[in-house]
Amino acid sequence: MKKVNVGLLGFGNIGVGSYKVLEMNRKRIAEVSGADIEFTKILEKDVHRKRDVSVSLDRFTQDPDVILKDPSISIVVELLGGIEPASGFMLAAMKNGKHVVTANKAAVAANYDELTNTAKAGGVMFRFEASVCGGIPLLNALTTALAANEYEEILGILNGTTNYILTQMTENGLAYEEALKAAQDKGFAEADPTADVEGIDAANKLSILLSVAFGMRVPPEQIPAEGISKITKTDIDRAKAEGAKIKLIASAKKSGNGVVYSVKPTFIPEDHPLAGVGDEFNAVFVKGNAVDELMFYGKGAGPLPTGSAVIGDVVEIAKAL
Amino acid sequence: MKKVNVGLLGFGNIGVGSYKVLEMNRKRIAEVSGADIEFTKILEKDVHRKRDVSVSLDRFTQDPDVILKDPSISIVVELLGGIEPASGFMLAAMKNGKHVVTANKAAVAANYDELTNTAKAGGVMFRFEASVCGGIPLLNALTTALAANEYEEILGILNGTTNYILTQMTENGLAYEEALKAAQDKGFAEADPTADVEGIDAANKLSILLSVAFGMRVPPEQIPAEGISKITKTDIDRAKAEGAKIKLIASAKKSGNGVVYSVKPTFIPEDHPLAGVGDEFNAVFVKGNAVDELMFYGKGAGPLPTGSAVIGDVVEIAKAL
Repeated sequence: MKKVNVGLLGFGNIGVGSYKVLEMNRKRIAEVSGADIEFTKILEKDVHRKRDVSVSLDRFTQDPDVILKDPSISIVVELLGGIEPASGFMLAAMKNGKHVVTANKAAVAANYDELTNTAKAGGVMFRFEASVCGGIPLLNALTTALAANEYEEILGILNGTTNYILTQMTENGLAYEEALKAAQDKGFAEADPTADVEGIDAANKLSILLSVAFGMRVPPEQIPAEGISKITKTDIDRAKAEGAKIKLIASAKKSGNGVVYSVKPTFIPEDHPLAGVGDEFNAVFVKGNAVDELMFYGKGAGPLPTGSAVIGDVVEIAKAL
Repeated sequence: MKKVNVGLLGFGNIGVGSYKVLEMNRKRIAEVSGADIEFTKILEKDVHRKRDVSVSLDRFTQDPDVILKDPSISIVVELLGGIEPASGFMLAAMKNGKHVVTANKAAVAANYDELTNTAKAGGVMFRFEASVCGGIPLLNALTTALAANEYEEILGILNGTTNYILTQMTENGLAYEEALKAAQDKGFAEADPTADVEGIDAANKLSILLSVAFGMRVPPEQIPAEGISKITKTDIDRAKAEGAKIKLIASAKKSGNGVVYSVKPTFIPEDHPLAGVGDEFNAVFVKGNAVDELMFYGKGAGPLPTGSAVIGDVVEIAKAL
């Protein structure tokens, strides 16, 4: 069986989740990929942090070049988060002939063209399924099984934190601040929740969807984005009175020869499939001119669901090697 | 641009739908596949039937060998339906070095091993996305983006006809016979509805899912299948009283070292994502050991949604040629 060595940049929650997915499903992954896939080197400063996986200390390095220039490594998985140095590392890996997988929506949204063009020029694969809606196999579907469609509309609940907060406000009558606190207590929201609650995270993901589904490059900061921090109980009650629920919706819709797009709190009628998507779940409603209405629903975050998408991408590359 | 000639077996509703999808999205399909894809020959007796596509008469043939032995044809799309002669034609095409795409669940379920083994032996691709849930990109997801999972459970509303009937009984209080009549009037049920209402169609699809997701070959006639023809208003009311809806569920669930499977009417709690799937829609709930809970929702039938999946498979093959 061919051996495929993978270099991992970053060993935080998603890195550990990806490592675990590979360990726990090793036999199945070998069967479907036809390869013996191994994380042989890991870029991480904090080698002694408690993680519930056991990794031999000699796999860790603090020097990115040890991975980026290692000729035995054919795939680099970037899970550092943030635009830099992640983007620079991915570009360097591609230029060194390595295939790249990432879960990093901020880096992909910021540098979509440079990353995809560099991969193409280098004849390497670049996959980023986990960057939009974690474990939900959306990007892969849009680019393969649904590729015979012109997309007419995409409506997504792309951020689990805000969906959890809005669900608490709607189902349990919490005020915004109380619901945010509940999300933080559950680990669904960060101490500084700005990127989630102000729609910035959703705008990054929508920017990627605009590129993938509509072939349109729109940097995330050019997407009109309104968050949920100003939503009040009165708004929630008004939606209920109209037979609707408030959801933070990222939307892209064909209009004439163009596409209109935004991220904003939206009244969704209770009989729409997106209205039933509660708690921290994500869902994406897609309308294609052939397939008509589709919806994908699942966990948009978390170490194992995101690891599922990361390792799925690694498997697709390993199959093709 | 490379030219990819496709032979089409059968020009009924799904054949015409697939032809239309290729015509209406010709530009996009050329971009994503890098190929100029064309249905160059069509096996069909009834060349004069009114169809709202225009096809030059010289493309039609009544001799399958004209397609199966044509060296200029690299992909055969089988849309005849029924086990034979469809299976024999697909095997002959594979033995002649042609890649095969089908939407035919009865043939795939009946002859899964022979079809997949013959394709493998001949070094050709065999794709059948449209055979389970029409336009929903389920099989592709299970075998690519989700391939790093061990599947724990699959629960599917795999048959649109019965879901429409049950929705009419639940939402509008119709009796079974009235709801069946309504489905027939809408074109969702055939004059002889046996295969749908007795769970045979769902068992065919579940047989395919057991092969694809669990690596288990179970011929459809060995799947315990109970249909909906004995469901009464009393059953519907009893479900409501328990906070549930009756759905015809095809299920496969890991249990110890085995998998338990069946097709039967099932009480689904109203807060389960499958409970909200109404009318003729299909949906499949998947639980993987990494990705956790996912749901796919969409149109499981109809010429264009099914054509979307058929042409999606053709595009995947054309990309690889």
